[in-house]
Amino acid sequence: MPYIKLESHLPGITGLLEYRKDSAQPIRELTQFLLRGPSSLSEGERELIASIVSSGNECRFCTTAHTAAANMLLGENETSARVLSDIATAPVSDKMKALLVIADKVRESGKLVTDELIDAAKTAGASDIEIHDTVLIAALFCLYNRYVDGLNTFAPNDPQYYENLAGRIVHHGYTRLPEGYDHLKKTISS
Amino acid sequence: MPYIKLESHLPGITGLLEYRKDSAQPIRELTQFLLRGPSSLSEGERELIASIVSSGNECRFCTTAHTAAANMLLGENETSARVLSDIATAPVSDKMKALLVIADKVRESGKLVTDELIDAAKTAGASDIEIHDTVLIAALFCLYNRYVDGLNTFAPNDPQYYENLAGRIVHHGYTRLPEGYDHLKKTISS
Repeated sequence: MPYIKLESHLPGITGLLEYRKDSAQPIRELTQFLLRGPSSLSEGERELIASIVSSGNECRFCTTAHTAAANMLLGENETSARVLSDIATAPVSDKMKALLVIADKVRESGKLVTDELIDAAKTAGASDIEIHDTVLIAALFCLYNRYVDGLNTFAPNDPQYYENLAGRIVHHGYTRLPEGYDHLKKTISS
Repeated sequence: MPYIKLESHLPGITGLLEYRKDSAQPIRELTQFLLRGPSSLSEGERELIASIVSSGNECRFCTTAHTAAANMLLGENETSARVLSDIATAPVSDKMKALLVIADKVRESGKLVTDELIDAAKTAGASDIEIHDTVLIAALFCLYNRYVDGLNTFAPNDPQYYENLAGRIVHHGYTRLPEGYDHLKKTISS
């Protein structure tokens, strides 16, 4: 049972974003910019960062949703599974390995990011902005994971729920539809 | 030395918010809404939540800035010092004690917030929205602390820097001034 009164048909983050729309709007916009905005990291790579941070924080709702989104964007399920089990041997570029390690350190504490980890990322080709965005995406999911679990929201067991949610965030992004787009809402919720 | 190229005269979060203005805007808006928007928690109480979370995460820049802001809003320095040293005996209401304990648990992990802690807050008079905002403010400062330290930003030693910064966020808030308000910027930076 959530610790505050949320709409019972809206699990995880979805009920929280409806509960307080004023705080939801900038959270949605920040997520849309970082995960779907212009970037030299692919959308799938950015979802992998969300996934590894949520997994490390043991937030089941966020891990399942963003792993499903990463899988949908990458077109296969193997990469995310191997990233979550062992970054070093996962089938991603050396640059992504270095960035995923940084994200996982940020998850524990910003202070665990060392000169050596940054040098490794830069040597593997990571730009300043890729390092910046990796740190901020990891920090954002530390916010999400705490928000979702700190208020004890409900996480469905049905994998199909997360597939549907992933479809929504892959095809329509994180930003709430502006007023006047009600005709699209049916498509999104279907 | 910061891990990415930031303007050297802008320490801590201030350089990061200038580095990437597109991600800065929703972060500013979320902070303005949660810390300065309409609330039954005073602005000083909300800054105490920011302060205790930043202190627990050992983020010197954020702790010093938000403790200074809390002190300025409360009109004295004793409450923040005692909150940071021992919530149980600090000179705040029972409701605030319960909310500060919840914030400190959220800082470690959302999963550490228990039914008992929520019951204690509700018994002391906390509303659903106060509990919601406490959790989200704590989660937001987990983002800030990781952003500031994960990129190794510079934290000035001079206490006057933080007094000036606190004056700015107490009197002008967290939102960037919109275009066309350049005549006010001089006042803010002075």
